[in-house]
Amino acid sequence: MVTPDAPLRVSMIGHGFMGAVHSQAWRVAPRFFDLPRPVEMALLVGLDQDATQKAASRWGWAAAGNDWRRAVERPDIDVIDICTPGSTHAEIAIAALQAGKHVLCEKPLANTLAEAEEMARAADRAREAGVFAMLGFTYRRVPAVQLARQLVLGGQLGQIRQVRAAYLQDWLTDETAPMSWRLDKKLAGAGALGDLGSHIVDAVQFITGQVLTAVTGITRTFVPERPLLAGAAAAERGHVTVDDAAVFLGTLSGGILATFEATRMAAGRKNALRLEVSGSAGSVAFDIEDLNVLQYYRVDDGPVAGFRRILVTEPEHPYLAAWWPPGHALGYEHAFSHQVADLVVAVSKSEQPQPTFEDGCQVQRVLDAVERSSGSQRWEPVAPGAGTSSAP
Amino acid sequence: MVTPDAPLRVSMIGHGFMGAVHSQAWRVAPRFFDLPRPVEMALLVGLDQDATQKAASRWGWAAAGNDWRRAVERPDIDVIDICTPGSTHAEIAIAALQAGKHVLCEKPLANTLAEAEEMARAADRAREAGVFAMLGFTYRRVPAVQLARQLVLGGQLGQIRQVRAAYLQDWLTDETAPMSWRLDKKLAGAGALGDLGSHIVDAVQFITGQVLTAVTGITRTFVPERPLLAGAAAAERGHVTVDDAAVFLGTLSGGILATFEATRMAAGRKNALRLEVSGSAGSVAFDIEDLNVLQYYRVDDGPVAGFRRILVTEPEHPYLAAWWPPGHALGYEHAFSHQVADLVVAVSKSEQPQPTFEDGCQVQRVLDAVERSSGSQRWEPVAPGAGTSSAP
Amino acid sequence: MVTPDAPLRVSMIGHGFMGAVHSQAWRVAPRFFDLPRPVEMALLVGLDQDATQKAASRWGWAAAGNDWRRAVERPDIDVIDICTPGSTHAEIAIAALQAGKHVLCEKPLANTLAEAEEMARAADRAREAGVFAMLGFTYRRVPAVQLARQLVLGGQLGQIRQVRAAYLQDWLTDETAPMSWRLDKKLAGAGALGDLGSHIVDAVQFITGQVLTAVTGITRTFVPERPLLAGAAAAERGHVTVDDAAVFLGTLSGGILATFEATRMAAGRKNALRLEVSGSAGSVAFDIEDLNVLQYYRVDDGPVAGFRRILVTEPEHPYLAAWWPPGHALGYEHAFSHQVADLVVAVSKSEQPQPTFEDGCQVQRVLDAVERSSGSQRWEPVAPGAGTSSAP
Amino acid sequence: MVTPDAPLRVSMIGHGFMGAVHSQAWRVAPRFFDLPRPVEMALLVGLDQDATQKAASRWGWAAAGNDWRRAVERPDIDVIDICTPGSTHAEIAIAALQAGKHVLCEKPLANTLAEAEEMARAADRAREAGVFAMLGFTYRRVPAVQLARQLVLGGQLGQIRQVRAAYLQDWLTDETAPMSWRLDKKLAGAGALGDLGSHIVDAVQFITGQVLTAVTGITRTFVPERPLLAGAAAAERGHVTVDDAAVFLGTLSGGILATFEATRMAAGRKNALRLEVSGSAGSVAFDIEDLNVLQYYRVDDGPVAGFRRILVTEPEHPYLAAWWPPGHALGYEHAFSHQVADLVVAVSKSEQPQPTFEDGCQVQRVLDAVERSSGSQRWEPVAPGAGTSSAP
Repeated sequence: MVTPDAPLRVSMIGHGFMGAVHSQAWRVAPRFFDLPRPVEMALLVGLDQDATQKAASRWGWAAAGNDWRRAVERPDIDVIDICTPGSTHAEIAIAALQAGKHVLCEKPLANTLAEAEEMARAADRAREAGVFAMLGFTYRRVPAVQLARQLVLGGQLGQIRQVRAAYLQDWLTDETAPMSWRLDKKLAGAGALGDLGSHIVDAVQFITGQVLTAVTGITRTFVPERPLLAGAAAAERGHVTVDDAAVFLGTLSGGILATFEATRMAAGRKNALRLEVSGSAGSVAFDIEDLNVLQYYRVDDGPVAGFRRILVTEPEHPYLAAWWPPGHALGYEHAFSHQVADLVVAVSKSEQPQPTFEDGCQVQRVLDAVERSSGSQRWEPVAPGAGTSSAP
Repeated sequence: MVTPDAPLRVSMIGHGFMGAVHSQAWRVAPRFFDLPRPVEMALLVGLDQDATQKAASRWGWAAAGNDWRRAVERPDIDVIDICTPGSTHAEIAIAALQAGKHVLCEKPLANTLAEAEEMARAADRAREAGVFAMLGFTYRRVPAVQLARQLVLGGQLGQIRQVRAAYLQDWLTDETAPMSWRLDKKLAGAGALGDLGSHIVDAVQFITGQVLTAVTGITRTFVPERPLLAGAAAAERGHVTVDDAAVFLGTLSGGILATFEATRMAAGRKNALRLEVSGSAGSVAFDIEDLNVLQYYRVDDGPVAGFRRILVTEPEHPYLAAWWPPGHALGYEHAFSHQVADLVVAVSKSEQPQPTFEDGCQVQRVLDAVERSSGSQRWEPVAPGAGTSSAP
Repeated sequence: MVTPDAPLRVSMIGHGFMGAVHSQAWRVAPRFFDLPRPVEMALLVGLDQDATQKAASRWGWAAAGNDWRRAVERPDIDVIDICTPGSTHAEIAIAALQAGKHVLCEKPLANTLAEAEEMARAADRAREAGVFAMLGFTYRRVPAVQLARQLVLGGQLGQIRQVRAAYLQDWLTDETAPMSWRLDKKLAGAGALGDLGSHIVDAVQFITGQVLTAVTGITRTFVPERPLLAGAAAAERGHVTVDDAAVFLGTLSGGILATFEATRMAAGRKNALRLEVSGSAGSVAFDIEDLNVLQYYRVDDGPVAGFRRILVTEPEHPYLAAWWPPGHALGYEHAFSHQVADLVVAVSKSEQPQPTFEDGCQVQRVLDAVERSSGSQRWEPVAPGAGTSSAP
Repeated sequence: MVTPDAPLRVSMIGHGFMGAVHSQAWRVAPRFFDLPRPVEMALLVGLDQDATQKAASRWGWAAAGNDWRRAVERPDIDVIDICTPGSTHAEIAIAALQAGKHVLCEKPLANTLAEAEEMARAADRAREAGVFAMLGFTYRRVPAVQLARQLVLGGQLGQIRQVRAAYLQDWLTDETAPMSWRLDKKLAGAGALGDLGSHIVDAVQFITGQVLTAVTGITRTFVPERPLLAGAAAAERGHVTVDDAAVFLGTLSGGILATFEATRMAAGRKNALRLEVSGSAGSVAFDIEDLNVLQYYRVDDGPVAGFRRILVTEPEHPYLAAWWPPGHALGYEHAFSHQVADLVVAVSKSEQPQPTFEDGCQVQRVLDAVERSSGSQRWEPVAPGAGTSSAP
C-alpha cells in the first residue's frame, strides 16, 4: 500500500513530559539513523485545543487536534504514539490497532491487568494483519543495558544465578510535598511499584531472557496524608492511595533469584535505576545515574580481575555508531530516539518491534502478583501468559 | 579482688583465621588505646598440642594448652576469648561465665537458636555477679559504621524509612570449588545466611536502634554438589547442605522497611558489606570494600546537595584519635582492636560491653524466622526476646 | 530593521562532526528554550555541492550551497555559523562580520595568533555596529561547569589557590593508527595543545575569572611517523608534525598556580576533561566523562565534610529547568543547545554573547606562550590582550 | 658471627608519629611473615629520658635511652632504625653504618643534598662489609603500588609515555592554622616539595624503572605568615619559610613525560597520593585514599575495555598471602610491616634491601633541581648519581 519512501505519518496523543521526550525522539531519530522511510510529525492530539496548538508549535507537530478518535480515523496516519495517562491506554490503543495503525504506547501498558491483557490480544490480532504494537520500556535501549544483555545472552557471564534490581527516587522524601494525581490510585493506577517497579521488572527480564514466575513482597505508604496544595500552612490534606515504596523477591524461569526495590523515598537518589547480574563466569552492574557506564567483571581475568568501568560510547557499542566520538556522553532522551529508529525499521520490514504488548502484560502480571503478595503475606505465582513475548 | 592495674589475663580458645585476628587485636589495642588495665596474652588453647604451641609462639601467647576446661578453671585467667567453630560456643561460654570469667565470643553466637538463648540466659546470670559476656559483631566498630549510627540516632537523617543491606562475596562462584566444612550444615550450622546474613542483620539493628519484627525470605543452594577435593578431575562429590545465598525482606520495630541479601555467589564482590539508610532528612551509605568511607546525603544542602564521600579518618571520628593522621587508612583488623579496647574498658568499670549475647540471640531469632519463612513461603514473625539487648 | 519575531536566519559553513552537533543544536534549542525569536536553518554551505545537499537534507537545512561568500552576501541571512577547519576561520568570520552578520565560530578561533587577533579586532569593530561575534568554547555551557563557576565567583570556595586541569584522550595510543589531516600542522594548526589544551585553558579562565599570565611547558610527539593508510602492512609512512601531548604550568592574574595536561595518548581515557579548583574554603572537581556531576567540598562541613557528588540535574541548576526531571542525564550535545539559546537571546537584546573572540585570543596567547616555552625551556609571559574579554 | 636464629636486635631512634608506626611494624611483621630470624625490640632512644621511657613502655621496647651514640656503640644491637627529624639523619646513619649496624632511615634521607650524598657514600662503603642501609620510602610496599610496578616492568602496559603524579593534602588550607616546626626551613628542611614531593618522585621512579633527568617547576608559599599559637586572636605571627605547594614537570631517562604536584593546600584531599601511568598497551591509576585498589586498563580488552577496579587483596597479590581473605582491607601501617619483613629477609641473606640510600639521593637531586628551577625559571638537569640505586 505504501511506497518504500513514503513518509511514516505519526500522530501523538498527549503532550505532557512524555510527549516532550517523544517529540524530541521523532524529530531527532531520522537525523542520526538511516531510516528506511522518512518520518512526518503530522498531528498532535490533546484535550484542550489551545494548549495542544501551543504544544504542537513548540514540539514541531504539523497540526493539532483535540479528539484522538479523529486521529485514529484519519487514513493518512500510520502510527499512533500514546503518551496519555495509563487509564486511557487500552481504549486508544485497541481502537488504533483495529483501525490499522501501528501503535507505540508509553508504559505502563495499562492501569489494570485486565486491560493490559485485552490490549495484548488486540496486538496479536493486529499483527496478523501486518499492524504492530510496541511498548515504551525505553530503558531497554540505553546502550549500557543493551550491552549487559549481549554479555548475558552471549554467555560471557556463564550461568546467571542472582539479580539485584532497584529503582530509587526521592521526590516524596519531604512529607510536606503536596498531593498530586500521581498519588491518587484512581488516576495513577499505581505508585512506586507500577511507575518504577515496572521498569526494573522489564529490565531484569530483558537482560536475562527469563521471566519472573513467583514473587513475595510488600508495599508501603510512609506518608498517608499530604497537603492538598504546596506550601500551604495548616492546609487541607488529601489521602495518598498509592504506595511510596515496594520491595519484593522473585524467582525466574531459569532459576535466577532476584531482589527488587522501587521507592520514591530514598533521599539523595534522584533516578537510581540499578541492576546487578551475578553469573558463574562474571557480573555486570549498571546505574542509570551513570548512564553511559557498564561495570563488567570477568572471573577469568584472574589476579588482575576487577569491575571494568566501560564507557559505553564506542562505535562498536549498541546504537553508538550514530552518535558522537568515544567518551562523549549520551543523555536520557537518546534512548527514545533509538526506540523511534527501531520502530520505523521494524514496521518498514513488517517485523514485530520490541518490546511487545505481551511483554507489558508479563510485567503487569508480576506487579499484580506483588500486590497480591503484599496482601496475602505469601509467595504468589505470576500468572502464565499466552501471547507473544519478545523474550528470547 | 583485682587491683586497678593488675593485668587482664586472657585465654583464647581456637587459633584459626579468627584466632589470628583476635591475637593481633589483643597485642595491638593496648599500644594505641589508654586502657585502664594492662592485658596479658596468657594462654592459647587448641585441639592439638603441637599445633597450638606453634600458633601460640607465632601469635604471641605466653602458653599453649589443649583443653579449654583447664583454661576455664584457672583462677588467674580473667577473660575467655572464644574463636572456635559455632557448635562449641555454648558449652565453652556457659562454662566460662559460670566460672566467673568474662567472655568474648566470636559470631555467630551459636549454631542453634536454643543454644543461643541458653547462652544469653547464662550471660544474664553472670552479669548479676559482675561477670560480662560480649559478642564479636566486630563490624559495629568500623568507624564509618559508628558514624552512621551517630547520624541516625542523633536525628540527622530524620525519620528512617528504608534500609537496604547486602553482604556479597564470591568465593563459591566457581562450581568446581571443593567441599569444605563450611558447606556442611552439621559443622557450620548455616551457610551465607548465618555467616553473612548475621552481620547485616546486626548492623541494621545497631545503626537504626530498631529490631526486626517480621521477615519473608528464601535461601538457595545453587551448587548442591561439589568435588570433595580441589582440582580432582571426575572426583567424588559431596553434598552441600547449607545455603549459598539468602534474600529476605523485613519490617523493623519502628516502622522501617528493609531488604537483605547474603550471598557467596556474587562474582567480583569480594567482601561487599553494603548498608544504605534512607530517612526523611538524609541518607547514609556504606560499603566495607571501601572501609574508611561513609557516604552521607543531607536534604537541607539544597541545590548543592550530593552524597558526601566522608573519609572517616579525622581525629573527631570514632576511634580515630588513637590512630594515624587524616587520610591514612585503617584496615580490616582495626575494628578488632577497638573491640578489645572497649571490652577492657567496660569490664574494668564493671559495665556491660556491647553487643550482648542477647543481641546475638535477637539476630539468631531473625535468621531463624528467615529459615522458617523459606520453608513456609510466608512472612514469619521474629520471636520476641526477653533478655538485655544493647539496642537503645 | 528586524521585527522582534522575525526568524533569525542561520547559514552554517561546514558539515563535518561539528556541523552535525551544531545542526542538532539549532534544531533542538528553540524547542526547549523560550527564545525571543524563531530560528530558521536557512542554508548549509560546503565545498562539494552534492555532498552538501545530502548533508543539508540529513541535518535539516532548507538549502545547500558551495560558496560561503554567497552566504555572507545574502541579505536575508542573520547569522553565520562557522564549522570549518581552523585555517579558514579568519577569512570567513571577518567577511561575515563586515557584511553585518552575527558570527558563531567553532574553536580554535584561528590556527595562528596573528589571525586570531585580526578576528578579535574585527569583532570589536562589528560590535559597535550592533553585530556580534561568539566563540564556541561550548564546555562553558555544561551545567556542572557553570555551577563550578558560580561557586567560585560567588566566593563559596574562598580564595582560590590552585587549579589542576587535564584533558586526556587516547585515540593516538596505538602507534599503528594512521596519519590524518589532524596530525599535519599545516592543516590542523596544532595538536593536542591546540585541540585539547585550548579547552582547559578556557575552562580554567572561565571558572576562576582570572587569566593566565605566564607559563612553562613542553610539547611532545611520541610517535613521529605513522602509516599513511590504516591497516596497511609495511606501508608508506608520514610525518606527524603536531604534538601528541603537552604539559604546562601556569600562574594566573589573581595568584593562582595551575597545572595543565593535554594528551591524546592516555590509554583508557576517552574524553577526560578534568578540572579541580582548590580554595581556602572549599574545592570543586569535575570530569566530563561524568558530565552531569560536580564534586564539591566545603571546609565548614566539619567532621561530616566530604566531596559531595552533586547530580547537576535539578531545576535550580544552570539550564536544567528546560530539560528533564532530576537525575535524568544530559548528553554531550546539550551544551550546544545552550550555546544557541544564549546566542539568540543575546543578539535579540543587542548584547554581546559570551565567550568573545577576544577570549579566544587570550587562549591563543596562552598556547603561543606554551609553544615558545617548549622551545626556550623557560617560563614565558602570556602576551597582554587589548580587546574585550568576557572574563569578569 | 650470628647464628641463623639469633634475634635481630633493633634500636629505634626517635618516637614521634613515625616512631609509633615503626614500632607497630617491628611488633607485627614477625607475626605475619615467616622471617628467617626473630626480631627483638631492644632499645628506644629519645632526647628526654622520662618521655622515652614512657614511649618505650607504650610501644613495647625493652629499654629506653637518651643518647643515640650509646645505641650505636652497643655490640648487641644489629639494626638502627632512624625516626628522628631529617636534620639528624646523616650523623646518626653514618655513625651507625661505621659501627657495623644495619640502618633503616626514615625519609627524607637528609635535609640537604650534600648530606644525602655523604650518607650514600657511607652506605656504599658499609655494603662492602656486609652492612646494609635501607631508606623508608614505605609507599613502595603498598600492594597496589607493587602490582603497578609489576605490570609496568612486565611490559603489560607497553611503552610508557606519560605519568601524572600528585600528592594532595589540605592541613594548611586554613590560613589561621598556626606555625609549626614543619613550616620552618631550618628545622624541616623543606615544605610540601620535600615532604610530599619526595614520595611521588620515588614512586614514579620505582614504578617505571626510570629516573628523572630534567625538571621545570615552581614552589609557592600561599600563606607566608601564620599565628605563632593556635586560636590566639590578633596573636604574634611567624614567617613560613617553606613552600605550601610545588608543581613541576619532568622528563625521565626512558623518554617518559611526567607532571608532579605536591601541596598541603588542596581542600578536601586528606592524603591523596595519586599516580597514573599511560602506556602504549594500557594504563594504571592509583590513589592512596583508596589504598587497596589499583585501576588497570588494557587496550586489548577491546569493546569491553574499561578501567578495572582491582581490589588488591587476593593471596596472589604482593604481600597479601600473609594477611586476610580477599576483600578485607589493609591499612596505612601494613606497608611498614612489609618494610620490616623485607629488611629482615635481606640482611639475613646478606643482600641489599630496597630502596637504597642512593635511591634517596636520586630523589634529593630531583627536588634540588626543582628548587633551582623555581629560582632560575628554566628547566634544570637532575645531577647524575654515581652510586648504587635499586632501580632496575
